[in-house]
Amino acid sequence: MSSNDLSNSVISPLGDRFKSDNFNGTVWLNMLTPFGTACPIGNVTFEPGCRNNWHKHAGGQILLVTGGRGYYQEWGKPARELHAGDVVNIPADVKHWHGAAKDSWFVHLAIEVNSEKGPATWLEPVSDEAYNPLK
Amino acid sequence: MSSNDLSNSVISPLGDRFKSDNFNGTVWLNMLTPFGTACPIGNVTFEPGCRNNWHKHAGGQILLVTGGRGYYQEWGKPARELHAGDVVNIPADVKHWHGAAKDSWFVHLAIEVNSEKGPATWLEPVSDEAYNPLK
Repeated sequence: MSSNDLSNSVISPLGDRFKSDNFNGTVWLNMLTPFGTACPIGNVTFEPGCRNNWHKHAGGQILLVTGGRGYYQEWGKPARELHAGDVVNIPADVKHWHGAAKDSWFVHLAIEVNSEKGPATWLEPVSDEAYNPLK
Repeated sequence: MSSNDLSNSVISPLGDRFKSDNFNGTVWLNMLTPFGTACPIGNVTFEPGCRNNWHKHAGGQILLVTGGRGYYQEWGKPARELHAGDVVNIPADVKHWHGAAKDSWFVHLAIEVNSEKGPATWLEPVSDEAYNPLK
């Protein structure tokens, strides 16, 4: 491996299908460190068009985008387009969603912050009216 | 991007040269989230042959290997060879080092766990007698 290859760094395998009513499509989850530890880290892969419902985290969350193209949106704000290398620092108790663009897979690491403060609170789906205008 | 491309996910740029007496060669550091937040995350790139000194973390640390080939060793144990996708969960107060193999660059994300417990404690360099036998 030379320094020219660093931008092609490989991360984690897909892991298992993650079945959840909080996503509108197919998602894979590979936990890199377990729930219940100080800093649970999951590798999350969304198929094109798949996003999660609006939700919030009691302790916050950090997203590190590792592949594809997707979006992050906080309630009342415009959606932010995301690409590999982008970092999203989600404050505690801020209502938001994240997921893939319509035509792209999307992969991020999700790092729970202050996880001892409690689990995520899941809310309503992202409406087609909100999602469909995104490119 | 198709699902076949997921294994080539790109991560972070090199960032800045990180000048420190606690490494025996050239290292680059790109902080993805700042020191002083709940969960500081740095992208660390080692040139071939470069490793850090023995050290320990008051709150622990998680390494996510994103590229190249390197090693992690805890005091009194054999070195563990690392490749992209490997995860190292470093317990609090365990003396250890990490760095590149002799012939490879090495890149990992370093996630500080329970960082409010205090900074790392830096100790002596890894001896040539310990490092040179590693392939």
